[in-house]
Amino acid sequence: MGRTSDAREKILAAAHSLMEMRGYSALGVAEICKTAGVPKGSFYYFFESKEALALAVLDEHWAEERIGWTRILNGDAEPLERLRQLFEATEARQRAGMESCGTVSGCMFGNLSLEMSNQAEAVRERLQEIFESQVEMIESVVAEAVLRGEATVTDTRAAARSVVAQFEGQVLFAKLYNSPSRLGAVWANSLALLGARPSPAPAGA
Amino acid sequence: MGRTSDAREKILAAAHSLMEMRGYSALGVAEICKTAGVPKGSFYYFFESKEALALAVLDEHWAEERIGWTRILNGDAEPLERLRQLFEATEARQRAGMESCGTVSGCMFGNLSLEMSNQAEAVRERLQEIFESQVEMIESVVAEAVLRGEATVTDTRAAARSVVAQFEGQVLFAKLYNSPSRLGAVWANSLALLGARPSPAPAGA
Repeated sequence: MGRTSDAREKILAAAHSLMEMRGYSALGVAEICKTAGVPKGSFYYFFESKEALALAVLDEHWAEERIGWTRILNGDAEPLERLRQLFEATEARQRAGMESCGTVSGCMFGNLSLEMSNQAEAVRERLQEIFESQVEMIESVVAEAVLRGEATVTDTRAAARSVVAQFEGQVLFAKLYNSPSRLGAVWANSLALLGARPSPAPAGA
Repeated sequence: MGRTSDAREKILAAAHSLMEMRGYSALGVAEICKTAGVPKGSFYYFFESKEALALAVLDEHWAEERIGWTRILNGDAEPLERLRQLFEATEARQRAGMESCGTVSGCMFGNLSLEMSNQAEAVRERLQEIFESQVEMIESVVAEAVLRGEATVTDTRAAARSVVAQFEGQVLFAKLYNSPSRLGAVWANSLALLGARPSPAPAGA
């Protein structure tokens, strides 16, 4: 076992990639530690339980993903164009995963919502918080688009929720058909859900 | 152990309700047999593996659900009204599950798509077939609506896929928030995705 901080990071990284591919219930602490290359005894030094580890993985995953979301959604492009860029980045990430691992792993938050939200209240609450953050971030872009007359929805919160729900549904099919191109409909559908019309392609696109 | 046919039915029924609540990976054959009240030894007389059981549960669940889908979608109402009735029936089923078990279990097909499609090729294929059937059934209603000038999409297959994806995404949130009312947005969103306008409420509604 390396420095203790190394061991914690190794456990987190191993759990992250295992959970991304295989969910939560299918994993055991022994397998996580073996993948991480740390003795099983050290697991409980860092994490109270497998559930505590899952929460840490979710936090870390959202902290990383949120950086990309913030960069894109606070960017200089027009509001709906930023939303389009966000979906494009997500599709690119699923495509990269497909090319490196041969499989579309989907959205870890959606995966765990369906696998675990009935079974672990703490995980359910954390996933709710993460999706609420996503909805808030998208809502602020939708509200900008509405102010500019580029979207016509009246309830921007509900519209942002519908955009995220539609996206999660398309990711489900991308995973089921192991095909990132299933995400191709996300953008046109989001425009429909926002009561927006397709804008001309941005300069340089 | 009762008659062999009873035992198989008992195993299927137990697996069905356990899988609905807790997915696949979290279950063991011993627990399924205990819930079914049949000796573990008899399991492998009926099912080659836990995966074979999962396929049988999926088939049975879709066979049952398909009866309701067919009844509603082949009904006498106008095409989009039949689609509305289908979503209403699904919301009612989630609400009934919530009232009897205290929890929204979501859509078993969506749940297993996210939990298992990367891990069991046979399950992935079966789920693809089920969702293709659903998309086909919805597409034929959408095509009718288009012919009547009540929907404006040009690619009816893609539109039907988007309606199903959007629905699965909303079911994900209904499960995550343990709230069937999250499905309330499904109908208006489907109209938006189909390029349709809300029609007047049907007589008697």
